[in-house]
Amino acid sequence: MAKEFIVTPWEVKGNIDYDKLIHEFGVSKIDSALLDRIKSHTGELHYLLRRGIFFAHRDMKFILDEYELGNKFFLYTGRSPSGHTHLGHLIPWMFTKWLQDKFDVELYFQFPDEEKFLFKQDLTLEDTKKYTYENMLDIIALGFNPKKTFFIVDTIHADLMYREAIKVSKKITFSTVKAAFGLNNESNIGSIFYTSMQAVPAFLPCVLKNKKMPCLIPHAIDQDPHFRVSRDVIPKLGYYKPASIQCRFLPGLGGIAMDGKMSSSVEDATIYTTDDEVTVKKKINKYAFSGGKDTVEEHRKHGGNPDIDVAYQWLVFFEEDDEVLKQIHDDYKSGKMLSGEIKAILIEKINSFLKVHQKKREVAKKHVDEFILKKHSAHHL
Amino acid sequence: MAKEFIVTPWEVKGNIDYDKLIHEFGVSKIDSALLDRIKSHTGELHYLLRRGIFFAHRDMKFILDEYELGNKFFLYTGRSPSGHTHLGHLIPWMFTKWLQDKFDVELYFQFPDEEKFLFKQDLTLEDTKKYTYENMLDIIALGFNPKKTFFIVDTIHADLMYREAIKVSKKITFSTVKAAFGLNNESNIGSIFYTSMQAVPAFLPCVLKNKKMPCLIPHAIDQDPHFRVSRDVIPKLGYYKPASIQCRFLPGLGGIAMDGKMSSSVEDATIYTTDDEVTVKKKINKYAFSGGKDTVEEHRKHGGNPDIDVAYQWLVFFEEDDEVLKQIHDDYKSGKMLSGEIKAILIEKINSFLKVHQKKREVAKKHVDEFILKKHSAHHL
Repeated sequence: MAKEFIVTPWEVKGNIDYDKLIHEFGVSKIDSALLDRIKSHTGELHYLLRRGIFFAHRDMKFILDEYELGNKFFLYTGRSPSGHTHLGHLIPWMFTKWLQDKFDVELYFQFPDEEKFLFKQDLTLEDTKKYTYENMLDIIALGFNPKKTFFIVDTIHADLMYREAIKVSKKITFSTVKAAFGLNNESNIGSIFYTSMQAVPAFLPCVLKNKKMPCLIPHAIDQDPHFRVSRDVIPKLGYYKPASIQCRFLPGLGGIAMDGKMSSSVEDATIYTTDDEVTVKKKINKYAFSGGKDTVEEHRKHGGNPDIDVAYQWLVFFEEDDEVLKQIHDDYKSGKMLSGEIKAILIEKINSFLKVHQKKREVAKKHVDEFILKKHSAHHL
Repeated sequence: MAKEFIVTPWEVKGNIDYDKLIHEFGVSKIDSALLDRIKSHTGELHYLLRRGIFFAHRDMKFILDEYELGNKFFLYTGRSPSGHTHLGHLIPWMFTKWLQDKFDVELYFQFPDEEKFLFKQDLTLEDTKKYTYENMLDIIALGFNPKKTFFIVDTIHADLMYREAIKVSKKITFSTVKAAFGLNNESNIGSIFYTSMQAVPAFLPCVLKNKKMPCLIPHAIDQDPHFRVSRDVIPKLGYYKPASIQCRFLPGLGGIAMDGKMSSSVEDATIYTTDDEVTVKKKINKYAFSGGKDTVEEHRKHGGNPDIDVAYQWLVFFEEDDEVLKQIHDDYKSGKMLSGEIKAILIEKINSFLKVHQKKREVAKKHVDEFILKKHSAHHL
């Protein structure tokens, strides 16, 4: 279990030690005092918070201080389109929607459609354009408030973004991106510049509204290097340092020790939001790493290990009811519940979620335009 | 006279050996065969061509081959706004206008308003915005055809430009820009990316019109490193390698051996298009390096040296009439014309030019919008 692990915006590998990551990245662990303070505003805690899936943050206290003073934050998160949405992508977005609802705040959702194009040799801008649209459907399907949610597409909104990105870029040297992202002399100059574009939505609403507002970025921990760099720069431009709240990764079907997060680069280990019932069933039955014993007899006697059982781990991410989850945990651990049974529960859970999601996804096709940030504020001479 | 010289897009210094530059940069000298071929289309040769001020090129033969086959080129040139327009800036633009008129072609004129912001610590985007407008007035005043001239402002047209720039940037490594522009690890990441934006107008018209067209870039020789890099990349994107035609620099008033080109960083050595008559007179009389002798007696006896006399050199750039110029040359060289007299001729020449130019510049204020590239072709999902 003491394997090496890698967490960068472009690569997540190995068995991730999240406590070590907290230390390495310099983020703060979400403690019970912070949870209580959030609860005092939201009335309840999202299960992703209760279960420590959102586990770390930067400057959440500042966000709440300002909120309590009447200075509302806005949310910023994003999706770099390079493929279809898989279930792992939904986790931070589901939580972001909860934050939007509970705090009644605006969300700026970035689609950096150049990022993966710049970092992946074979990906074209036609590919990323297609996936931008496909990914948007999933985000809309999650139920974000169209009046308070604004999609930013880097290539489309570049007339708003580029002007701000160059201000950011002027304050970041190549040495800094080398150190933060592991780029080198053979990296292309677009990939070197890119982090400037990812910084912009953390203050663009302030530019558009000409108003200083705090920004909170919910995101998976692998994106932290971008915000570590931009948090140094953004205050120099006259805006608040963006705060962030970070989640760990949904493990791939292959198992926690096998791969750090579910990745689209391993087709079989991935469940997409567009997968049909049969595919979901097949993938989970065939690929979900089991924490059960080799024979039914042994399993009944010694019980399964929920800590490494992917079906159980996924239920931690998707079963909202704590009591239901605890019952599954205990039954599986005691040996009362077999591997096939826990997989069947997960299959049912995922398929009933996807059934609704896919319907909403169809409806979303009519609403994409409503979500795209209007450009009436674009700069002119 | 064997001083070192430096020619980069951001620094021009020393007594430039243009023959050496041709060799170093790998451009081709404009020879009499090429001049004849141009003349066969234009009917006459612009004095800047006749006098070798436009002295070098890349792929002019290709441009003329295609033109003769009915495949018209478009022109691309630009101005990086960081200050008021000085007389040196006008030289390539005057020639560009001549090309537009003679070949009846479109011109795409780029204002990379982020460039100097990225390369100069103290320059703000508010500064470059102001100078973009001021510089536009000078360009319009030169008489470009508003129906065939399209201004591109990087921050304003970023929704057209950025998408193309990232395609360019994907094919350029940091090693390449290090070598071409002398950037280093402490360079900001915007400056590293910038050359991608300068490449775009060389094929943007092809994108907008969905048509493969040759591009000809008239420019001062210091910009060649940008196009050396982009000429390698642009064919990989499916467009023609842009051709170019290059001029040498109008020397500063301080003299040819003192500084490579007139620079706005030396106020007194610079005449701006907005200078009034008295200022022009004062600057030329006070600062224009003289090739005359120390006393009138000596001058009458030995004559002046037009090769180092700035007033004479400027007349080479601004006196269109070859015979008038030759008479001045001979009279000055023989001692018949004194330094004060040749300066008086230059003052009269510049002031009568600026009198008209400044009037046209006022009129231009009403026409700026007509020249700005319309964005109806912007990308959407």
